Amino acid sequence: MTQATTQTGISQAQQQVEEELVERVLASFDNAPDPRLKQIMQSLTVHLHDFIRDVRLTEEEWNKAIDFLTAVGHITDDKRQEFVLLSDTLGASMQTIAVNNQAYADATEATVFGPFFLDDAPLVNNGDDIAFGAEGQPAWVEGTVTDTDGNPVPGARIEVWECDEDGLYDVQYTDGRMSARAHLFTDEQGNYRFWGLTPVPYPIPHDGPVGQMLEAVGRSPVRAAHLHFMVTAPGQRTLVTHIFVDGDPQLAIGDSVFGVKDSLIKRFEQQPAGTPTPDGRDVGEQDWAKTRFDIVLAPAQA
Amino acid sequence: MTQATTQTGISQAQQQVEEELVERVLASFDNAPDPRLKQIMQSLTVHLHDFIRDVRLTEEEWNKAIDFLTAVGHITDDKRQEFVLLSDTLGASMQTIAVNNQAYADATEATVFGPFFLDDAPLVNNGDDIAFGAEGQPAWVEGTVTDTDGNPVPGARIEVWECDEDGLYDVQYTDGRMSARAHLFTDEQGNYRFWGLTPVPYPIPHDGPVGQMLEAVGRSPVRAAHLHFMVTAPGQRTLVTHIFVDGDPQLAIGDSVFGVKDSLIKRFEQQPAGTPTPDGRDVGEQDWAKTRFDIVLAPAQA
Ligand SMILES: [Fe+2]
Ligand SMILES: [Fe+2]
Repeated sequence: MTQATTQTGISQAQQQVEEELVERVLASFDNAPDPRLKQIMQSLTVHLHDFIRDVRLTEEEWNKAIDFLTAVGHITDDKRQEFVLLSDTLGASMQTIAVNNQAYADATEATVFGPFFLDDAPLVNNGDDIAFGAEGQPAWVEGTVTDTDGNPVPGARIEVWECDEDGLYDVQYTDGRMSARAHLFTDEQGNYRFWGLTPVPYPIPHDGPVGQMLEAVGRSPVRAAHLHFMVTAPGQRTLVTHIFVDGDPQLAIGDSVFGVKDSLIKRFEQQPAGTPTPDGRDVGEQDWAKTRFDIVLAPAQA
Repeated sequence: MTQATTQTGISQAQQQVEEELVERVLASFDNAPDPRLKQIMQSLTVHLHDFIRDVRLTEEEWNKAIDFLTAVGHITDDKRQEFVLLSDTLGASMQTIAVNNQAYADATEATVFGPFFLDDAPLVNNGDDIAFGAEGQPAWVEGTVTDTDGNPVPGARIEVWECDEDGLYDVQYTDGRMSARAHLFTDEQGNYRFWGLTPVPYPIPHDGPVGQMLEAVGRSPVRAAHLHFMVTAPGQRTLVTHIFVDGDPQLAIGDSVFGVKDSLIKRFEQQPAGTPTPDGRDVGEQDWAKTRFDIVLAPAQA
């Protein structure tokens, strides 16, 4: 053994000083009238102090952390939520999703909701085009919604939304038009189908402190290409998820918000221009893709 | 055993989902060029995810946390640092002090620096009055500065600062005057002495989100009465500390930033009006107090 360093050799007296401090902070929450708030603050205390003690945080680093959080606070406004980006890029948003959407049998896995959902997307019929003029490669998307016993779920409401080929959602356009989003319902057999766009990768906003953090640690701000789904049906747990695109190089680089699950990666089969489409639609002189996403809903009480 | 609940019965499949997510977030920092930054971000990831998983944070609670941090960011400006208050009230500032000022033999313990130090406080001689007109009960403060071998440390620089009887520091006055702060040096025998004020409790700013948090958990924003010291001497570790006042009721209620250590609580012996003073000073028709604070400095390399 070499001589004990600060990192590895904390004296017993020192450990006692640090632990007594944690005990005092914990005790300060003992009389919180709301037991859940008490639990949260005490757990936060334990983990925050563990972090400071584990890394032996220096006073200079503490100052940098205060400055970083201040910058995150100052760039945040009605339109820009840098704390959400911070939570996303630390995987905290995804972990919250995981904790609240527990794995259940073979039910389809959930992923992050994201900031681009609108609750007044147009209703379309099965087979319709949800692009509404957004540019990109046409993609035929179809599947069946079932429960965990394998029974089809007719009348399930499916919300879908995605970015255009430039990586922009309609809400990021300056002209206020709505596109590349819709809702539809499964038919009597629990099937759904629509024309959308083959998803492409796009970066989260990275011109602020979170972007600087990603750059400092050598991480990409780009999200793996995805198509958002939210599926609701009576008696079933609401599913918020994405499908990802098999072969997207960003899958190997890493999704910047950790939304990817292997079960959600789907093949978008490329079809050369002129290939007949499933519904006879004429997509013109361009290639297109098709994919299948079968959805299994967990019971609401699971 | 009753049926497993969300809190207590996490299935193995679910645990695996959560742990795999943590592993992915950790891996995202693997290529950080700065090894220290990598260590900090990975440790932060572990403890942040542990917190979310331990309390099974709901999506509503996550939203509240985002709103709280946003409010902390928005009230913070050049003069108000709510993130520091948050760190202080969670004991994180004090833990950082503890980690960076490890217990050493019988050296005097450190505590929080606080936001009210100024580096251009006037030089006074031993025995002088540092109040400079600030109101409060006069207090005679004396002591000896030694090293951990018991040798006196002559010429040690002692900075002292405190609030007035209304709980205000001079920097909180509107007229810009400097008072209740000074620096002085120990004499040839390592002794120091000055007239200050008997400290009184004062609240940290509590009209913002941190004050709301303290109220929600039933905590007082008040700091236990204290007199700040910073002691520097060549070859010795710089000591930033306070002395607290034995009998201060806030000691039982709890110091809002967890700065108190038992070894730093000193008796301020009350002297009725007319009691002769140690240096013959006439303090007029009022009572006064005296206290002793012997200071032991750790070696700089400890
Ligand atoms: Fe998205
Ligand atoms: Fe203070």
